[in-house]
Amino acid sequence: MLRVLVINGPNLGRLGKREPEIYGYLTLEEINKELSELGKTLNVHIDFFQSNTEGFIIDEIIRADEHYDGVIINPAAYTHYSYAISDAIKSISLPFVEVHLSNIYVREEFRSHSVTAASCIGAITGFGGFSYQAGLHCLVDHLKKKV
Amino acid sequence: MLRVLVINGPNLGRLGKREPEIYGYLTLEEINKELSELGKTLNVHIDFFQSNTEGFIIDEIIRADEHYDGVIINPAAYTHYSYAISDAIKSISLPFVEVHLSNIYVREEFRSHSVTAASCIGAITGFGGFSYQAGLHCLVDHLKKKV
Amino acid sequence: MLRVLVINGPNLGRLGKREPEIYGYLTLEEINKELSELGKTLNVHIDFFQSNTEGFIIDEIIRADEHYDGVIINPAAYTHYSYAISDAIKSISLPFVEVHLSNIYVREEFRSHSVTAASCIGAITGFGGFSYQAGLHCLVDHLKKKV
Amino acid sequence: MLRVLVINGPNLGRLGKREPEIYGYLTLEEINKELSELGKTLNVHIDFFQSNTEGFIIDEIIRADEHYDGVIINPAAYTHYSYAISDAIKSISLPFVEVHLSNIYVREEFRSHSVTAASCIGAITGFGGFSYQAGLHCLVDHLKKKV
Amino acid sequence: MLRVLVINGPNLGRLGKREPEIYGYLTLEEINKELSELGKTLNVHIDFFQSNTEGFIIDEIIRADEHYDGVIINPAAYTHYSYAISDAIKSISLPFVEVHLSNIYVREEFRSHSVTAASCIGAITGFGGFSYQAGLHCLVDHLKKKV
Amino acid sequence: MLRVLVINGPNLGRLGKREPEIYGYLTLEEINKELSELGKTLNVHIDFFQSNTEGFIIDEIIRADEHYDGVIINPAAYTHYSYAISDAIKSISLPFVEVHLSNIYVREEFRSHSVTAASCIGAITGFGGFSYQAGLHCLVDHLKKKV
Amino acid sequence: MLRVLVINGPNLGRLGKREPEIYGYLTLEEINKELSELGKTLNVHIDFFQSNTEGFIIDEIIRADEHYDGVIINPAAYTHYSYAISDAIKSISLPFVEVHLSNIYVREEFRSHSVTAASCIGAITGFGGFSYQAGLHCLVDHLKKKV
Amino acid sequence: MLRVLVINGPNLGRLGKREPEIYGYLTLEEINKELSELGKTLNVHIDFFQSNTEGFIIDEIIRADEHYDGVIINPAAYTHYSYAISDAIKSISLPFVEVHLSNIYVREEFRSHSVTAASCIGAITGFGGFSYQAGLHCLVDHLKKKV
Amino acid sequence: MLRVLVINGPNLGRLGKREPEIYGYLTLEEINKELSELGKTLNVHIDFFQSNTEGFIIDEIIRADEHYDGVIINPAAYTHYSYAISDAIKSISLPFVEVHLSNIYVREEFRSHSVTAASCIGAITGFGGFSYQAGLHCLVDHLKKKV
Amino acid sequence: MLRVLVINGPNLGRLGKREPEIYGYLTLEEINKELSELGKTLNVHIDFFQSNTEGFIIDEIIRADEHYDGVIINPAAYTHYSYAISDAIKSISLPFVEVHLSNIYVREEFRSHSVTAASCIGAITGFGGFSYQAGLHCLVDHLKKKV
Amino acid sequence: MLRVLVINGPNLGRLGKREPEIYGYLTLEEINKELSELGKTLNVHIDFFQSNTEGFIIDEIIRADEHYDGVIINPAAYTHYSYAISDAIKSISLPFVEVHLSNIYVREEFRSHSVTAASCIGAITGFGGFSYQAGLHCLVDHLKKKV
Amino acid sequence: MLRVLVINGPNLGRLGKREPEIYGYLTLEEINKELSELGKTLNVHIDFFQSNTEGFIIDEIIRADEHYDGVIINPAAYTHYSYAISDAIKSISLPFVEVHLSNIYVREEFRSHSVTAASCIGAITGFGGFSYQAGLHCLVDHLKKKV
Repeated sequence: MLRVLVINGPNLGRLGKREPEIYGYLTLEEINKELSELGKTLNVHIDFFQSNTEGFIIDEIIRADEHYDGVIINPAAYTHYSYAISDAIKSISLPFVEVHLSNIYVREEFRSHSVTAASCIGAITGFGGFSYQAGLHCLVDHLKKKV
Repeated sequence: MLRVLVINGPNLGRLGKREPEIYGYLTLEEINKELSELGKTLNVHIDFFQSNTEGFIIDEIIRADEHYDGVIINPAAYTHYSYAISDAIKSISLPFVEVHLSNIYVREEFRSHSVTAASCIGAITGFGGFSYQAGLHCLVDHLKKKV
Repeated sequence: MLRVLVINGPNLGRLGKREPEIYGYLTLEEINKELSELGKTLNVHIDFFQSNTEGFIIDEIIRADEHYDGVIINPAAYTHYSYAISDAIKSISLPFVEVHLSNIYVREEFRSHSVTAASCIGAITGFGGFSYQAGLHCLVDHLKKKV
Repeated sequence: MLRVLVINGPNLGRLGKREPEIYGYLTLEEINKELSELGKTLNVHIDFFQSNTEGFIIDEIIRADEHYDGVIINPAAYTHYSYAISDAIKSISLPFVEVHLSNIYVREEFRSHSVTAASCIGAITGFGGFSYQAGLHCLVDHLKKKV
Repeated sequence: MLRVLVINGPNLGRLGKREPEIYGYLTLEEINKELSELGKTLNVHIDFFQSNTEGFIIDEIIRADEHYDGVIINPAAYTHYSYAISDAIKSISLPFVEVHLSNIYVREEFRSHSVTAASCIGAITGFGGFSYQAGLHCLVDHLKKKV
Repeated sequence: MLRVLVINGPNLGRLGKREPEIYGYLTLEEINKELSELGKTLNVHIDFFQSNTEGFIIDEIIRADEHYDGVIINPAAYTHYSYAISDAIKSISLPFVEVHLSNIYVREEFRSHSVTAASCIGAITGFGGFSYQAGLHCLVDHLKKKV
Repeated sequence: MLRVLVINGPNLGRLGKREPEIYGYLTLEEINKELSELGKTLNVHIDFFQSNTEGFIIDEIIRADEHYDGVIINPAAYTHYSYAISDAIKSISLPFVEVHLSNIYVREEFRSHSVTAASCIGAITGFGGFSYQAGLHCLVDHLKKKV
Repeated sequence: MLRVLVINGPNLGRLGKREPEIYGYLTLEEINKELSELGKTLNVHIDFFQSNTEGFIIDEIIRADEHYDGVIINPAAYTHYSYAISDAIKSISLPFVEVHLSNIYVREEFRSHSVTAASCIGAITGFGGFSYQAGLHCLVDHLKKKV
Repeated sequence: MLRVLVINGPNLGRLGKREPEIYGYLTLEEINKELSELGKTLNVHIDFFQSNTEGFIIDEIIRADEHYDGVIINPAAYTHYSYAISDAIKSISLPFVEVHLSNIYVREEFRSHSVTAASCIGAITGFGGFSYQAGLHCLVDHLKKKV
Repeated sequence: MLRVLVINGPNLGRLGKREPEIYGYLTLEEINKELSELGKTLNVHIDFFQSNTEGFIIDEIIRADEHYDGVIINPAAYTHYSYAISDAIKSISLPFVEVHLSNIYVREEFRSHSVTAASCIGAITGFGGFSYQAGLHCLVDHLKKKV
Repeated sequence: MLRVLVINGPNLGRLGKREPEIYGYLTLEEINKELSELGKTLNVHIDFFQSNTEGFIIDEIIRADEHYDGVIINPAAYTHYSYAISDAIKSISLPFVEVHLSNIYVREEFRSHSVTAASCIGAITGFGGFSYQAGLHCLVDHLKKKV
Repeated sequence: MLRVLVINGPNLGRLGKREPEIYGYLTLEEINKELSELGKTLNVHIDFFQSNTEGFIIDEIIRADEHYDGVIINPAAYTHYSYAISDAIKSISLPFVEVHLSNIYVREEFRSHSVTAASCIGAITGFGGFSYQAGLHCLVDHLKKKV
């Protein structure tokens, strides 16, 4: 059974309450629950971590190295300037998949740049809560090919 | 049964032969075949179109409006400068999903910008041939929610 | 009697159906018909050409050199990056008038730059279908002064 | 009968004397006279205003709100930096048409940007004195459609 | 008793009529009246000056040097390019407070830059007519500390 | 009675000791005390929060949503790059007022840009400790008008 | 006897009072007087004009065409953005010499660019009041060579 | 005997007629003929292809892979923006030599950048029709060294 | 005896495991031990602090003010965007020396800019673990000269 | 009697032969002779130095410190990139006047920037050989005021 | 018999020893020898000059004017910033051909710009030592056409 | 015994006399003497070279290849634009350490970029004459590890 960690960055605990016309009406708990269920059908155990603090996300990324097979990360606003998170991802050997709820290409200019995606195997943007599920499909496919 | 069109842009007919260290060893035919099989399990009929010519891709996008429920598009190099393809996507009412084989964030600077993604519901980058399969999952999820 | 060619670039065949809040509710056929009628009152015969393909537009520009007295061109999205169309216009001796349906200055940043206008005698932007009629007035005035 | 105001910005009183290879050999008076005659055939009364002072042009724009149906404006050099004139146009409810004698795309780089055109319904550039006549055609067409 | 001058730049005479969704529904006269009343409670006599002309605003700034203890200025569109007004403020010894009705950070890019604020002691932006009242509080506090 | 939270960002605990020629000689405690006293005259209860950690400031912003009527925030250096704080402010429904002790327009270039101000109703910069008092006046005025 | 006009732009009436560490302690009257005296020794009659208003400076430039042999101009802050003054200079046939009191290369970045100097025969910057005298020497030399 | 393909991009069919002061008075046929003759002396068979359409050039590049030993390409205006042609060249294993008739460094700014040259072994610019002959010399030298 | 604090920023706890081809094979503990030994020969007591959290680094910088004579800091990825750390360094009176393991000039473009170095007395980059030892030499030299 | 050195940079030995439509028909020897004669009337002894080598110009600048009262320098192309010459001028205590034959504002974009002028007291551009004479007037005026 | 000078810029004396994977394994002497032999077959006498000093290269360019019919120049690193060499080339009447060993378009960004090529008739880049031979072919062709 | 060369660039012969508030009061001779003494304690023989001429520095770098084990270089102003020196360093096999007296990050913007540091193993900036000593420590450490 594969073990996957999902890391959610700043303000994602506000999902469902925050600007729903952009981020959708699902709460993070509902998204997580859907993802867990998909995990079961794919034989993947999933843990969840959310923090608003850049440094705690880095701590968690480093800690993940020994406990998981891969990570799905939504760095939220840190996507656009946290070279520290980007370095953390590169510093460990797990595959990361970056996901975004909204389409980062149709919003403010600064949101179309990602400094973290280059440290991941790939990125998925714009499918609401389903971005996480697509991310899980991609991560599992990637892990299976490596075996 | 849903009908989906897959549009592949310039040089993608060369897949498997062209720079495999970047684009992988699968040919476009193999990727298409895998995708068709996934389509069957999801009750989706899939047609395929490939052209190196910007204008023919636009013709096909417009023609798609009446024959499909959604489109998966890999505009390849046109991703980075074809405002004409971007306008074509916006000019019709179908949902588009943009996919890329390689992670556009880890290559030349110009490849990290997409002028077409803003016209799509979302984008998937970096998972090789599986980007198309993840794209199909996302498109089907999107179409089901619309119903 | 003057002979004028009207060249319409990518997606303009979608007029009336595509984003009417930006481009208006008239179809290209209706715009052409109005223009033909204005042509009759000005003693001008008008032919129409539309293509989504940059190269075919260039072919038509070159072919026009021997059959027309002037050209009205709406390069649509190619306005913003087709140095090839710009070069084609410069390579022949006919006067060109560039027209746009919407006001290119009130939309996305990239639309306020034109790489083709510098090859034309002038440009008209923002008056919907009437931009073509104003363009015809200008072209006729220009041709008369040359005589 | 429609009432239209024509506003000419800095140095346009020098027309015919100033760099005629760029701006043509007609004086402003001759251009105005031709336009007045076209006005008569279109049942439009036209008044003229010229000033070199940015603030006086703004005063006149504001004053126009109650006395005219529309305005044709050639902001000359102010086109490229007067956000104050641009704001003035937006602050009143009349339609404005921006016109330029020379083709602003074939001259110095700074002349290809307009900060005022975005406040107008459209712009016409490059047809010499006839730019004003084309502008009048467009303004009349616009006003008729609004009725 | 302190004497304060309030200088309002281009188009501010249009307040209440001009784009009220951005600038609010109060007229300049109503804003001035509210400010005068606050002045009385703070023992400050206030005079008002409005002009659309950059040069007249500079004249008034220079004239203010001998008749006032401080100035509240809303340079409106000149905020973004009038180095001449900025120099005028620096050329006299009075403290200036810059105020804006709307939040300059949530509008067009060019409005988030101020070339005049660096010549003032500080700036207040976004509180509608109350920006002037907050400006008066700040100016009075500043003048009292100087004594 | 209104409840207002004041959030102070990194290094503001050093006030009075840190570069007093830029930030003044008052300590944060003295500024807070003055503000509390003004709060009493305006019938406002004020709480204070200071942290050097971006994530803790976000935590506090989110927590504020249910306990306060409005927030005064001085994001200090985070003003210039924390899209995460900017997103947090937008994710809740309270009005925020951004304040700065020094005039951000007369210092290093990077300090004249604010990525957080666009999420606030307005901003006040340059009046030392009095910026907070002016901010309170503006916030109270805003809250009263909403009622 | 040659006739020369000296045009001084915004805030130069403040000379001697305004930031003397940058602009020196001489008043404009003293500079003018010294220049008049130099004029006498060179057989040149000199008139002086100063205005804070861009448009009035343009009016004066145009008026100069018929009454003077050459012009010395210090456009002050307008140097950096007045394309209208630059166009005015180009619109008449007199030679202009641009002068600046302070060295424009050692101050703020924006002051090292001149949009007016390209319309003049040359420019002199940094010699205080003597810049005008050097300008007169240059203008006289230029006029003599033309004869 | 070596087989070489020469690909000419948009508007090059107009050579001799189009702006001869820039591109020279030779027609493409004359240039081709001269090149064929040089080919014979070097024991090289040369075929020629010209198209205005970006996609057809890509088709031809891909088709060349199996029929030629090397390619000389003049992408004309596509030089400056066709990442699709650049990708096509990289996708096959033949050596390409880029040639230009005019010196791309002495014309408009945009012409001094080439997005296709980086996919070629080298580039030759500025020698009129002789650029093709120099290109053939270089290609033959390159192919001989590989043997 | 001098007291020196060494502050290590995000991901530096991963040294020896993270991208050793860039950062070397020494662990942070080994680097610290070597430095402590050098400290003994120079009569310097050294303490060590490492955190991934920007705010905790700022807390530690402020706390250092009263317990140390100087600080050696490797801000890692925060080097490139943490104006907050830069401000913290400036807010206290201790001398700081910035050190980097790898040569920041030979990596990604963004790594060649440091926003923290300007707050330090100097910077050392590229000598692996020895950068810390060189930093200690420099700091001790600086402290001795101050006495 | 004052002693002045004139330093001429690269290619100025070619004057009179090199692009005379830009630089004029006088040779450097003729310009020097005219300047020497003016020097005699002003009681100034003048020496001349010309070199194409950046480092030799720096050697000469440093050597000048003990033998001259001031320097007139025309750094020619080095004006635009030689920070080394700029540093050399700042490293000695003599006043420098920068002169240019042609108007640097009406030529290529790169020529309108000077990295050396900021190290001089002022600059004169555009008056042909007379620029040196005006420079001598300015230098003498400057030296007299210092006494 | 034609006389041609070959000028080689900084570090080219290191050829064969310096980074051979970029510049090839031939020494400059070997390249020169091959070129001399080609010269003999074309009836051209060739001299060679190499210097690391910008100013000596300029001296040589000027000296060449009277002794040669044309020049082949490889300015090496000076290609990218020596406006002085560019001016020197323009100051004499000989035709220059710029050559580069490596393809300047596939290396660091700064190497794709040439400030000297605009002063030459054309440029050749990427063919190793053969670039010089192609350059000689082009130069001879150019000289023959001039006769 | 190791042999090290120290290369000092333009104007460094002026040390102690030139802007001592930036570069300190030590002369280059005193710095060299201190360094020689440190060299003796580290068993290193040190030679010194200083030149203002870019080309002579390149000559010396190339000559160093056969006579030294490593080089300490302070390129002074050439740091910021001499790609030729940067190429020279790369063309030989010795390790280079770049040093600067002042902290290049706290001065003019252009001084924070180094085009030469990327060719060195590392760089040290800001410690006055001690930067050379720290550089020697680093170079010796580097050479010892290579053995």
